[in-house]
Amino acid sequence: MDTLLIKNVLLDGKSVDIYIEGKYIKEIGINKDREANRIIDASNKALIPGFVNGHTHAAMTLFRGFADDMPLTPWLKDKIWPNEAKMTQNDIYWGSKLACLEMIKSGTTTFLDMYPKIKATATAVKEMGLRAVLSGVCFDHFNSQLTEQCKIECERTFRLSEDFCDRITFALGPHAIYTVSGTLLKWLDKFSQENNLLIHLHLAETEEERENALQQFGYTPVRYLYQLGVLSPRLVIAHGLFIDSDEIKMLADYGVKVVHNPASNMKLGSGAEFRFIEMKENGVNVLLGTDGCASSNNLDMIEAMKLASLLGKAWRKNPEAVTAEEIFAAATANGASALRLKAGKIAPGYLADLCLVDLKQAAFTPNFNFISNIVYAANGSCIDTVICNGKILMENRHVPGEEEILENASRIAYNLVTR
Amino acid sequence: MDTLLIKNVLLDGKSVDIYIEGKYIKEIGINKDREANRIIDASNKALIPGFVNGHTHAAMTLFRGFADDMPLTPWLKDKIWPNEAKMTQNDIYWGSKLACLEMIKSGTTTFLDMYPKIKATATAVKEMGLRAVLSGVCFDHFNSQLTEQCKIECERTFRLSEDFCDRITFALGPHAIYTVSGTLLKWLDKFSQENNLLIHLHLAETEEERENALQQFGYTPVRYLYQLGVLSPRLVIAHGLFIDSDEIKMLADYGVKVVHNPASNMKLGSGAEFRFIEMKENGVNVLLGTDGCASSNNLDMIEAMKLASLLGKAWRKNPEAVTAEEIFAAATANGASALRLKAGKIAPGYLADLCLVDLKQAAFTPNFNFISNIVYAANGSCIDTVICNGKILMENRHVPGEEEILENASRIAYNLVTR
Repeated sequence: MDTLLIKNVLLDGKSVDIYIEGKYIKEIGINKDREANRIIDASNKALIPGFVNGHTHAAMTLFRGFADDMPLTPWLKDKIWPNEAKMTQNDIYWGSKLACLEMIKSGTTTFLDMYPKIKATATAVKEMGLRAVLSGVCFDHFNSQLTEQCKIECERTFRLSEDFCDRITFALGPHAIYTVSGTLLKWLDKFSQENNLLIHLHLAETEEERENALQQFGYTPVRYLYQLGVLSPRLVIAHGLFIDSDEIKMLADYGVKVVHNPASNMKLGSGAEFRFIEMKENGVNVLLGTDGCASSNNLDMIEAMKLASLLGKAWRKNPEAVTAEEIFAAATANGASALRLKAGKIAPGYLADLCLVDLKQAAFTPNFNFISNIVYAANGSCIDTVICNGKILMENRHVPGEEEILENASRIAYNLVTR
Repeated sequence: MDTLLIKNVLLDGKSVDIYIEGKYIKEIGINKDREANRIIDASNKALIPGFVNGHTHAAMTLFRGFADDMPLTPWLKDKIWPNEAKMTQNDIYWGSKLACLEMIKSGTTTFLDMYPKIKATATAVKEMGLRAVLSGVCFDHFNSQLTEQCKIECERTFRLSEDFCDRITFALGPHAIYTVSGTLLKWLDKFSQENNLLIHLHLAETEEERENALQQFGYTPVRYLYQLGVLSPRLVIAHGLFIDSDEIKMLADYGVKVVHNPASNMKLGSGAEFRFIEMKENGVNVLLGTDGCASSNNLDMIEAMKLASLLGKAWRKNPEAVTAEEIFAAATANGASALRLKAGKIAPGYLADLCLVDLKQAAFTPNFNFISNIVYAANGSCIDTVICNGKILMENRHVPGEEEILENASRIAYNLVTR
């Protein structure tokens, strides 16, 4: 079995050695004079769990900077959707490779994705060494013929996913309540229960969605799901803005997970109203995500932590809202637990999904409070080394093959939007 | 005279050569086969003006991460002020060295500072090669004896500043309207007029300040300055939140400059209400700043651009508010013009205060829109080379002496807060 010893690394303010056997952390101690296949001297570096990006659309890196500063509807209808419709497996593969590269470079080891043609994304994830929960995406647009097609497609993709590598889990991906019928949502809930799958759904992203749900279904978004009977601990909702106190209680009661995506919510003008404090008080598991690069423009979870904390404080006019420790947990341990991984913490028996942070830079000088510095002062470039599943994916900020990925993804993106 | 030729650099989408003579850009063209003391091949790099940080307190890098997630009053009274009171010239020198290093690393070539003991900051700026407008800071706390002391101190510092290097300009630094009397503000305005100096003032940072001004003076902050007769094109106000439409017109009429500090306003819970759109419509020159590291935690102007744009969009629920181009101008050309520098643009005759951006990274892949990518996808680590006043301050991300600065600043910071 592969073994790795990380020596002299700063963990919770102490210098320790970490011994990794296979994909797990085996021992943490001082002066572990273990033999190992590989020894890293991590002096002047701190150890953190790899980040868990709770919501993204990896292949949308290809649309980075393609259309910004536009109202939502023309942005989607004129820019994003027509180009997404043209995407081949090869486009999605290279977009996902670029996303994986970017995530590794900024310390993410696991992500929850939603995108069609998941085999292409799975191939990219397998090659790049990350961990992922991949949901396809389904829409039936309230058309019963499409509902049946979606069911067949979900079953097909689920079977297909059995061949994916062991770092990849399949999830169901109903797009949103305004594109997926209640009938299909109920079928997906049953299918997810039978097969113990997560369901990944956009919910309560805009005020308009809330107003429309009230008009169309007679219920606000969370109440609508409650009434359908599809709230469950298997459900992970992305966004969750504009949710009232009773809806937060429903999410808590049913163990639904919520992914906050501050960059996307801000950039699309959706709003600042993510009720972090009330979710925390009610025991809702809040994750952090970047959303896809078409709206957030990057996949940097360190930036997302600062955005989430600062947005929460600004909206509430309260500097105590969303502390550095709370948002760091959202970006690591909360994400891992929601995705049912023994990861997100540094302890024996946990998956060796880890990052070394380079402390020899201004962002960590002085270093009165490491968590404050990583959340508020640093950015993704502070990540020096990334380990996932016990394997080194980046060392000294170099990822094998990165030049080729940048060149190919760039070419693929231009070809896509111009063809 | 020193000459520098930057070859094959991307400027406005074209590959050009830039010839720099002494401290100025002399020529921009294609295949300039000029001889030069130094030639840089900038293939795969883009050229931007160096950023102008419109409001900071450089030496406060020493308080990075020292106290976060706290209410404003105990944060200031228990954490910041007692430690600031202990600061020596040597502390301020090393804090400013660290700030200069951090600014160079993230592409800032000029900053407007407010801090006591400006000689120490001036020495750091001189050594590090940056450009700065340094205001001291004065408080008379409405005490007429202190008013007289402040006047003497301002005159003394102004004379002292004549010995600073030619990259440094002196400005007057009344702290705020709640710490500086109207009598002193009027004297400072007169002194600034006689000596053609800028005045750097915190104004309208919190709702509380606005309410208190109404109570204490009978006027909102901008109206109070108007009534004192101290609104002028020499005035640069930091923050400028909670300003009504008539106050924006007053700022426009008198040519007052306003510095938006999104990170600080968000982190301290001051609020999101920076009226960027109305200021733009009324022709107010808006700059961008980070504020000091005690509240913003870093000095990264690229992060500040994203924060300002995203905060503006989230607050207004309008994805068209604060575009990438607008905030890029705020962070470059607007700052230079407010600080009366022929900089912030890349054209012959302008100061050679420039940065090379490394395009071989995920943030610039694909590169459909360079300004979008630098504002929304990148962070300070994309800056490869920094030139100020025609001199190279950083190349390949290395600043001479950086290790020593990090070590000394770290030691000085710990000694300061523990003595």
